[in-house]
Amino acid sequence: MAIERLAVIGLGLIGSSIARAVKARLPDVAVTGYDVSADVRDEARLLGFCDRLADDAADAVRDADLVILAVPVGGMADAARAMAPGLAQHTIISDVGSSKAGVGAALRAALPGHLVIPAHPVAGTENSGPAAGFATLFEGRWCIITPAPDAPGDAVTALTGFWQALGATVDTMDAEHHDMVLAVTSHLPHLIAYTIVGTASELEEVTESEVIKYSAGGFRDFTRIAASDPVMWRDVFLANKDAVLATLQRFNEDLTVLQQAIRRGDGDKLEAWFTRTRAIRRSIIAEGQDDPAPDFGRKH
Amino acid sequence: MAIERLAVIGLGLIGSSIARAVKARLPDVAVTGYDVSADVRDEARLLGFCDRLADDAADAVRDADLVILAVPVGGMADAARAMAPGLAQHTIISDVGSSKAGVGAALRAALPGHLVIPAHPVAGTENSGPAAGFATLFEGRWCIITPAPDAPGDAVTALTGFWQALGATVDTMDAEHHDMVLAVTSHLPHLIAYTIVGTASELEEVTESEVIKYSAGGFRDFTRIAASDPVMWRDVFLANKDAVLATLQRFNEDLTVLQQAIRRGDGDKLEAWFTRTRAIRRSIIAEGQDDPAPDFGRKH
Ligand SMILES: NC(=O)c1ccc[n+]([C@@H]2O[C@H](COP(=O)([O-])OP(=O)(O)OC[C@H]3O[C@@H](n4cnc5c(N)ncnc54)[C@H](OP(=O)(O)O)[C@@H]3O)[C@@H](O)[C@H]2O)c1
Ligand SMILES: NC(=O)c1ccc[n+]([C@@H]2O[C@H](COP(=O)([O-])OP(=O)(O)OC[C@H]3O[C@@H](n4cnc5c(N)ncnc54)[C@H](OP(=O)(O)O)[C@@H]3O)[C@@H](O)[C@H]2O)c1
Repeated sequence: MAIERLAVIGLGLIGSSIARAVKARLPDVAVTGYDVSADVRDEARLLGFCDRLADDAADAVRDADLVILAVPVGGMADAARAMAPGLAQHTIISDVGSSKAGVGAALRAALPGHLVIPAHPVAGTENSGPAAGFATLFEGRWCIITPAPDAPGDAVTALTGFWQALGATVDTMDAEHHDMVLAVTSHLPHLIAYTIVGTASELEEVTESEVIKYSAGGFRDFTRIAASDPVMWRDVFLANKDAVLATLQRFNEDLTVLQQAIRRGDGDKLEAWFTRTRAIRRSIIAEGQDDPAPDFGRKH
Repeated sequence: MAIERLAVIGLGLIGSSIARAVKARLPDVAVTGYDVSADVRDEARLLGFCDRLADDAADAVRDADLVILAVPVGGMADAARAMAPGLAQHTIISDVGSSKAGVGAALRAALPGHLVIPAHPVAGTENSGPAAGFATLFEGRWCIITPAPDAPGDAVTALTGFWQALGATVDTMDAEHHDMVLAVTSHLPHLIAYTIVGTASELEEVTESEVIKYSAGGFRDFTRIAASDPVMWRDVFLANKDAVLATLQRFNEDLTVLQQAIRRGDGDKLEAWFTRTRAIRRSIIAEGQDDPAPDFGRKH
């Protein structure tokens, strides 16, 4: 099952990075792009990362072997319905949404009789829009595929090969487990970062300009992910509500433990906790998932 | 009031960076180093960033114009008492501790009749020890000085000039305000990071190896500061307990608001919050306190 024609719906950070990576690594694949926003389509045309830009979703997907939806999670069903009239029977429909159970269900409901294999490349930056994408975004990163148990093996193999060709390593799991794993490794960190950046900007005792000036003490690390796209993240929290609230509860319990240790002056408990967390970073670096240079290798 | 002889007590990340920066930018200043650990003294001798290494704290500070204590906050009083017999009357005693009110009081109590001017360079990395230091650590960063109201102006000017010579910009404020500002910009972020990394490593539903594999979704940003020195941070939380607990309470209130918005499906509230936090990062970058490249400019 060869993928010769690809359609990308939604040409922001992720969609445009896919198109760019295909140009760079799969030059024989023809890429058609579509975005609901005419401005984004114009920008994409100028940037030149698609072979063709369609002005209509159904037209974009006509004859495609693979369609990838790269729109915010809350927009997946609408995007699917808009393209449905143009879909061929053999087309694989996939997506890149950051949550999977809800998105899979929404796509299957919107596209009865079509094959849907959800996916999620665990790669991104804090920027959004077509200019933010780049061809190497997926290199050395993981892509998680969450096929239904009855998904045809050749289609799963084709989608796996596609992501591998873009430089990713592919893992397969069920959508519910994906959503729990990502709640911990991505959604809770974003929620916490958004919270603390909000808290810091609204204290009476410390001005916003002081927070900015002295941010090198640690705060600036949180501001990166708290600068991520508001609409994308609104949708992720609404779509993965249960797993996010469950992990948040665990976080709150742990925070209460540390808060109590500080209040009571229990230095041993604090030191033991802080020693344990060091090991995790070493493992992340050993697995090639972060830069070993101090300060992430920042110039500053 | 010229600083011609400097003694650095504690030769870890910060102490060794001061010595290196002095070599690079103030080559006429003679630097004597001392560390309570014989291993660290040996390593420092090998690394060669001090003109002289003393095997005794009192000997190290003899004739110094400026002494800088660069030991964990909880060790400041001990370090001060050990060097006291060698101190001359004209010597300025300063430090680099991450909290200031408690450290200032402890140093003044340990060194009656001597001039203490506490300071805090807002610069660091997640690494510790003498090999982790580097000469450019303080360039473009802030150093906060917290002199007592009756501190002699010429001594404050000399210390200010010293830090400026190392590339820092100096700000002066009272110790209590420093502790509140740093609680927000540094201590609370570290506490939150330590908490979430601990939480993620102890969930039943998600294995530690999954957390490590998929950390590029956001989690890895938190692991950097959660890899910081456990003893240093234990001491900071114990020393700045009140300000940390006060800002933590505000954080908890805000987290409850966002938690409720997720539970109720209030997308507008989430989107408005996430839009506000974006602006802060832009200001931090505009002020040169972080790297504008996506992902902090990480190679991965
Ligand atoms: N950013 C990350 O780090 C990351 C990582 C992994 C996965 N993801 C997932 O990737 C998806 C896209 O995220 P992104 O970061 O690429 O967002 P983005 O840069 O904001 O791009 C999304 C694009 O989709 C367009 N769009 C919205 N609704 C559409 C529709 N019905 N039909 C066609 N186009 C539509 C948007 O147009 P308008 O701007 O006009 O709305 C926008 O141009 C999301 O599901 C997200 O969860 C993101
Ligand atoms: N790291 C940062 O990002 C940062 C930033 C700004 C300020 N600070 C402050 O700077 C100070 C030093 O931190 P650091 O990161 O440089 O720590 P570090 O790398 O762990 O170095 C501290 C050194 O001081 C030694 N020491 C401990 N007690 C001593 C004593 N009584 N006399 C002499 N030496 C003693 C330690 O020896 P042992 O290892 O044998 O105990 C160690 O070699 C702390 O007060 C911290 O709050 C740190």
